[in-house]
Amino acid sequence: MKIQNECVPCLLKRVIFEVEQSTKDKKTKKKVIKNACKLLSELYDPDECSAVIATEVHRIAYEVLGDKDPYRHLKDLSNRVAQSLVPRVEELIKKSDDPLGTSILCSIIGNTMDFGIEGGSSHPDMLKDLFEKYVSDGLGYDDTPRVKVLLGKAKRVVLFADNCGEIVFDKVLCRELKNFNPNVFLSLVVRGESIISDATMKDTDELRFDEVVDEVLTTGCFAVGVDFKRMPDDLKKTLEKADLIICKGMANYESFSETRYHPIAYLLRTKCTAIANSMELPLNINAVKLYQ
Amino acid sequence: MKIQNECVPCLLKRVIFEVEQSTKDKKTKKKVIKNACKLLSELYDPDECSAVIATEVHRIAYEVLGDKDPYRHLKDLSNRVAQSLVPRVEELIKKSDDPLGTSILCSIIGNTMDFGIEGGSSHPDMLKDLFEKYVSDGLGYDDTPRVKVLLGKAKRVVLFADNCGEIVFDKVLCRELKNFNPNVFLSLVVRGESIISDATMKDTDELRFDEVVDEVLTTGCFAVGVDFKRMPDDLKKTLEKADLIICKGMANYESFSETRYHPIAYLLRTKCTAIANSMELPLNINAVKLYQ
Repeated sequence: MKIQNECVPCLLKRVIFEVEQSTKDKKTKKKVIKNACKLLSELYDPDECSAVIATEVHRIAYEVLGDKDPYRHLKDLSNRVAQSLVPRVEELIKKSDDPLGTSILCSIIGNTMDFGIEGGSSHPDMLKDLFEKYVSDGLGYDDTPRVKVLLGKAKRVVLFADNCGEIVFDKVLCRELKNFNPNVFLSLVVRGESIISDATMKDTDELRFDEVVDEVLTTGCFAVGVDFKRMPDDLKKTLEKADLIICKGMANYESFSETRYHPIAYLLRTKCTAIANSMELPLNINAVKLYQ
Repeated sequence: MKIQNECVPCLLKRVIFEVEQSTKDKKTKKKVIKNACKLLSELYDPDECSAVIATEVHRIAYEVLGDKDPYRHLKDLSNRVAQSLVPRVEELIKKSDDPLGTSILCSIIGNTMDFGIEGGSSHPDMLKDLFEKYVSDGLGYDDTPRVKVLLGKAKRVVLFADNCGEIVFDKVLCRELKNFNPNVFLSLVVRGESIISDATMKDTDELRFDEVVDEVLTTGCFAVGVDFKRMPDDLKKTLEKADLIICKGMANYESFSETRYHPIAYLLRTKCTAIANSMELPLNINAVKLYQ
């Protein structure tokens, strides 16, 4: 996705959010905000990918803060809150005629947990309060039947994870993907370095993803979504061989929508108008959208 | 009020809003956004008044746009919408035991009409839909009794107007201020030049404020709120002689809260957390707060 005008204040809002997570020092806060504005004045270009610009703005914020992971506490808390909801997720799947579809919905509900942006949540505990509402909302856009056709005949599937918290529900999703087609080789991809509230190898190790996927790869570097120019060779090969790519969340859409990789199924909550408009979807819905 | 971190994305959001009002040319839009970010990176300073920085950012936006009044259509429409509600305002005042108090409430309700910010309205017509709700909300903070004591013994009162639309209800307020104390000399102050959605002499001429006030003055220049360094001599003298200053809206609070002028009654809707926190008031209430 190309950066939209409205992405600029949204990105600054997120930078201010991470500044508040990281420090109480007023001079540092001021320096981060001034540097982020300066970088935006240099990089802003409606022909550039939003994720590429966001990566550089977060990079300078982290550098000035001297903090490699301002979201660490929120990420841990998000995982704990999501884990407390796993029994309910399992109950829903057990009762369902369509375990894969239910696991997809729950994993998208996990994607509502996102911090420092308008359509996101202000605290991980919000997920507890809103989980049942989101379940009854269901999917506002649903390409699952077409995704299942592709999944049924796929040999290799790659799932790009997004935030902490939702990564807990992604483990259930991975299990159901393999239950649906036990012959599939399933690769999970997380971020190569800590960036915003996204899951990394630390999370997949702790959550024992080795139980449900065939391999865990990383994007190899510090990037919002995926930096295709700095993608490791193993990930490049895996993407080339994939029969189906599944992307969780908005940042992966921002990155992949600028590439020719296909088929891709995006599983996400439309939390901002920029993404919703770009995907031609309503705002604030749970969506499965396939691009073949 | 000193600028807060959160003012930075809010200000950019408003600049983008005015860009959208003014042009469809992508190159111009890009140039405005880049220039606004650059200026913010230079000017941002938590020890500076928010209105002073906002003035400079809007100034550069207007310059790059080559547009002296991007809000002109919205301002005209706001006045028309507010005028369509005047019969209802008069009805409420007629029925009321406290005509001044009712006119104060209605004039604050007019202050909900504000564009390009989160707590504001997206279209002037929203006021029609929400007017009765705001009336039943009433005042969430009410220093009116103390204001009345000062008004009762005042010889000279100055009212600083804010947005178009609400200026229509301000005329009713001015009439009721004079009804409450017919001996008062009432000066109305509007912006010296068109800036954001604020009222100017053009509006007070069209609305015949000469019927209800003793004089109409202006802030003399292009400024969010009041630029005290460039204030005309007549306004300076009027402020020095005033027994009571009444300020409508947030921008006037941002400016006057950095001065020693007193007593001041602020009549506003708390539309953002920065102002609400600074005034120690809840967010999204109608408020009359007196600083003696």
